[in-house]
Amino acid sequence: MQSQIKRKLSPVSFTQVSIEDTFWSSRMEINRKKTIPHEYKQCKDTGRIDAFLLNWKPGMEPKPHYFWDSDVAKWVEAASYSLVDKHDPEVEKLLDEVIEKIAGAQQEDGYLNIYFTVVEPENRWKNLAHWHELYCAGHLMEAAVAHYDATGKRTLLDVMCKYADYIDSVFGLGKRDGAPGHEEIELALVKLYHTTGEERYLKLSQFFLDQRGQKPSYFVKELNQIEPGLGDRFNPEYCQDHLPVREQSEVVGHAVRAMYLYCGMADVANETGDKGLLDACERLWENVCLKRMYVTGGIGPSRSNEGFTGDYDLPNLTAYAETCAAIGLVFWNHRMLQFKGDSRFADVMERALYNGAISGVSLDGTKFFYVNPLESRGNHHRQDWFGCACCPPNIARLIASIGNYIYSESDSDAYIHLYIQSTGKLDIGGNEVILEQETNYPWDGNVKLKVTQKLPVTFGLNLRIPGWVKKYNLLVNGKKLNSNKLMSLGYVRIEREWKSGDTVELIFDMPVEKVHAHPGVKEDAGCVAIQRGPIVFCLEQADNPFPLHNVIIPENAEFTTEFDVNLLGGVSVIKADALLEDESDWDNILYRFESKKRKPIRITAIPYYAWDHREAGEMRVWIRYGK
Amino acid sequence: MQSQIKRKLSPVSFTQVSIEDTFWSSRMEINRKKTIPHEYKQCKDTGRIDAFLLNWKPGMEPKPHYFWDSDVAKWVEAASYSLVDKHDPEVEKLLDEVIEKIAGAQQEDGYLNIYFTVVEPENRWKNLAHWHELYCAGHLMEAAVAHYDATGKRTLLDVMCKYADYIDSVFGLGKRDGAPGHEEIELALVKLYHTTGEERYLKLSQFFLDQRGQKPSYFVKELNQIEPGLGDRFNPEYCQDHLPVREQSEVVGHAVRAMYLYCGMADVANETGDKGLLDACERLWENVCLKRMYVTGGIGPSRSNEGFTGDYDLPNLTAYAETCAAIGLVFWNHRMLQFKGDSRFADVMERALYNGAISGVSLDGTKFFYVNPLESRGNHHRQDWFGCACCPPNIARLIASIGNYIYSESDSDAYIHLYIQSTGKLDIGGNEVILEQETNYPWDGNVKLKVTQKLPVTFGLNLRIPGWVKKYNLLVNGKKLNSNKLMSLGYVRIEREWKSGDTVELIFDMPVEKVHAHPGVKEDAGCVAIQRGPIVFCLEQADNPFPLHNVIIPENAEFTTEFDVNLLGGVSVIKADALLEDESDWDNILYRFESKKRKPIRITAIPYYAWDHREAGEMRVWIRYGK
Repeated sequence: MQSQIKRKLSPVSFTQVSIEDTFWSSRMEINRKKTIPHEYKQCKDTGRIDAFLLNWKPGMEPKPHYFWDSDVAKWVEAASYSLVDKHDPEVEKLLDEVIEKIAGAQQEDGYLNIYFTVVEPENRWKNLAHWHELYCAGHLMEAAVAHYDATGKRTLLDVMCKYADYIDSVFGLGKRDGAPGHEEIELALVKLYHTTGEERYLKLSQFFLDQRGQKPSYFVKELNQIEPGLGDRFNPEYCQDHLPVREQSEVVGHAVRAMYLYCGMADVANETGDKGLLDACERLWENVCLKRMYVTGGIGPSRSNEGFTGDYDLPNLTAYAETCAAIGLVFWNHRMLQFKGDSRFADVMERALYNGAISGVSLDGTKFFYVNPLESRGNHHRQDWFGCACCPPNIARLIASIGNYIYSESDSDAYIHLYIQSTGKLDIGGNEVILEQETNYPWDGNVKLKVTQKLPVTFGLNLRIPGWVKKYNLLVNGKKLNSNKLMSLGYVRIEREWKSGDTVELIFDMPVEKVHAHPGVKEDAGCVAIQRGPIVFCLEQADNPFPLHNVIIPENAEFTTEFDVNLLGGVSVIKADALLEDESDWDNILYRFESKKRKPIRITAIPYYAWDHREAGEMRVWIRYGK
Repeated sequence: MQSQIKRKLSPVSFTQVSIEDTFWSSRMEINRKKTIPHEYKQCKDTGRIDAFLLNWKPGMEPKPHYFWDSDVAKWVEAASYSLVDKHDPEVEKLLDEVIEKIAGAQQEDGYLNIYFTVVEPENRWKNLAHWHELYCAGHLMEAAVAHYDATGKRTLLDVMCKYADYIDSVFGLGKRDGAPGHEEIELALVKLYHTTGEERYLKLSQFFLDQRGQKPSYFVKELNQIEPGLGDRFNPEYCQDHLPVREQSEVVGHAVRAMYLYCGMADVANETGDKGLLDACERLWENVCLKRMYVTGGIGPSRSNEGFTGDYDLPNLTAYAETCAAIGLVFWNHRMLQFKGDSRFADVMERALYNGAISGVSLDGTKFFYVNPLESRGNHHRQDWFGCACCPPNIARLIASIGNYIYSESDSDAYIHLYIQSTGKLDIGGNEVILEQETNYPWDGNVKLKVTQKLPVTFGLNLRIPGWVKKYNLLVNGKKLNSNKLMSLGYVRIEREWKSGDTVELIFDMPVEKVHAHPGVKEDAGCVAIQRGPIVFCLEQADNPFPLHNVIIPENAEFTTEFDVNLLGGVSVIKADALLEDESDWDNILYRFESKKRKPIRITAIPYYAWDHREAGEMRVWIRYGK
């Protein structure tokens, strides 16, 4: 089934990557030491873990919710990844206990779902549109694969294969119709297929993709059976059921669902060579990344559908921009990147990663944003946990596996996508090649690489030139290289016989830039955002004690950057002279014909991801701009 | 009970004023010929009028609503006023018929309310907080006074006196507690007192005012009796019940309720010399007019409470700014103006009148805005009618009685508040003085006055210099007068022995002005509104076929004004060279470091009140502004 559209690159697994990075190592450690235990405790205290014991009886509180399985699954996934980063027998033991409970919940036929076993057993597979049975199954499959990869244990994997086999016995051509209202199982089945080699999992994934957007819609039929008219009132766009997946061009509906769907589409396209799926992904990418994405990589502006609205509709104060959606954008772009090594996907991945995804967790690892607005009046804060707790374990599994996103390999080439101080062990056509990065990215743009292998090997070393770079220098073994002719799809490709000890230096100019949004974006009209390297900055009232809507960044503003090791876990801080329209000559008047007076002020910007860690106050990413 | 705080001025009744004005005469004619018949038909077709026949039985549709009486009452008031403007026997006959139905609905004890007679008779006076019994009574009283004034007939007046007597027998000191959840009866009882001389109506009005904001709150007690806890969940701010009226300083809650309350407070203050009431009005005025009023005179930004939020919170797109609230602001400022003749009240009255009030009715008189936003994306349009139809008859009664707002008189002085071509018959200390205005205001700033009376009379002629005026000339009998020393509270006072035929010329410079909002108004940051004379302008996409958020008015913009007799019933149109940030060099990019390019464009602004009469499209009052 292979074809020319198969991925040219393979991601280097984080198990082959060790990270010792100023930016990420502390985050990974906090994730391991604080976030994962905190989330375990929350799952435990709220009854999510013990719910797998199936002891719930009518009248008991709390009643299991139909998405509880997925919260625990994502915790299992995150904890498993953390074992690779640093093995901890306590965590492994905890995992064994949790997995034993999960396994104990499996029914004889293989079915495994808390809610539809103890609360509404009569409704198994009855409301795929709104309930999350297949979604929960998908997250448990991802957890099983992660646990197996991290520990070699098949305890959860076998359980989930049995469950997958059962699902496969229920759904499919010649069996019953159906698709997950909340996508997830599609990408999970491809992971399970990769781990087990069982092609029926891939086919089931493809089946679920193909069920989407049929006329009449599966979901409409299903809901009309539950209650006449219910399906007719259902908006299929909410779960991307408005068109067959290969015909989709516009990102619609719930943003997390959309991202997980597109991941599944990209995965199946890669496995089956289905160009229609990949073409749809390309079109959808253009719609979301060129028309519907915040500068932070946040997506899905609307609270009402937790998702997409129209082109260029990107309100800042009311931005929904769910943490999970930015994470999903990272997942999807990482997949798209592997097809051709086109850095536009890495640019989006990097944008979401360094801004709208990691903003989702506090610097101490124990508080979370579900919603990531780009403006605040001081009343939006991270919380310990949520009733609907998808985001906390999602950010935990991303951070624990960040090593996945740095390198790719092929028979002939090595790729560096992200500049993170790390050592990656690559397999280039059977040769082990070790790439070592030394860098202080994203705080400066200098990267030193060392290539190590047993014998000289000829391969193409592909170095990403991030989209934000205007000027850079490249030195191979200390000698400057003119890379113009070596650029392809945003990567410099240096093909040579690499010898152990060869070095490459990349020096990216990293000035402070003023970002302008497409004129279609109403809410950013007359404003700029501040960006340096991949980091988007914001103003917080803690540093800027004046109404932020009255701050004007002058066209000729000169920015200074300094790294403050003591602030917010160590961040670059940007300062500039700016102007403030103040109220001093506005006594007792609401409207007047005379212009507002401006006075000089000094402004201080911090990275967006680090906002809301000090006293509550206003925050703005988009700042007025003018002469 | 009189004291020094009694009104210095008395408004000259519209019965003493004949209007022949470019701006208002056609509006009054359309109001008489189109709006009033249209509203009669709507009241008739929806069952509101025949509901007074009390034929409704359970199960019948439509079921009378508890505010229906007030819609018909305001129609009776408007139709009565229109008779003064131009007597029409058909209208008088229609009024007689409607009043006969109203009168027929009166119960033996004097009670008169459709809903609580036929739908829930058991709940009479049981839920004053939310239902509108006293509010409906108030509007019927206003209607009765208007009908009596216009026709000399006591048919409705006697009915309403009987009802008022009954209400007075129920509520009051030593009788039962209570106050209207929706204020209105307070001001109506003062009107009834004036017409009948019955002081108990004034005392009842005062009683209702004094019931407000008691601890414990009357409404809280009442609602807790209906359902335990219901009162405790009630937010007394919604109906200005948070504090005793004399202690109020902040405008809160439902905007129309607030305006009607403040009218009642000003009326009772005038009658009783109650300085505490007037001082509260002054404080409330400062809060609303200096911190919470749109440039159009709209008030009450929030849909959720149909009312007020916080200082400087004036969103444009989501502005509620109910037509009735702007009308209420006119009513209240007209009352406040009479105390001292302070033109700041006339300025607000004029602002609301020429902008946010008359925007509520279409130029053809048959469509209405309930909500008056200052920005539209093309989906907000006037409607024929509303289920809750307070606004249409409210604007009708205002336009029909516009003559009320032009002149005031006292023993020694004449006042001209509004420049409207008209003839006013004033009584200055027993002398009949006729003032004739010749003007094209608000389209230009030239006003010619002629004074006529039988014998020379010495009095002070007070001419308002509107707040928008920067420069003007004043000529008396053709001779320029230096008026600097004659200015007091925004009026030029010319005291002399006026002879018949004396003339005064006022020449106000009327350039196009850029309005800046107080820096506290977030939503207007970086923007200006366009105003000329009292008229606030807006851009509509019909004239400006480009995204309005990308239009920039340059600091040095030169505006031209021309009157287009064929456009929108005849309006001044303002044009200027401006700049547009366009999308022409934004292919396939959402964010970039390069500034947006600007191209010159020509913009055309029309009066705000006249928007939404052509093809649907964007509209903006506040336009970006810069170098």
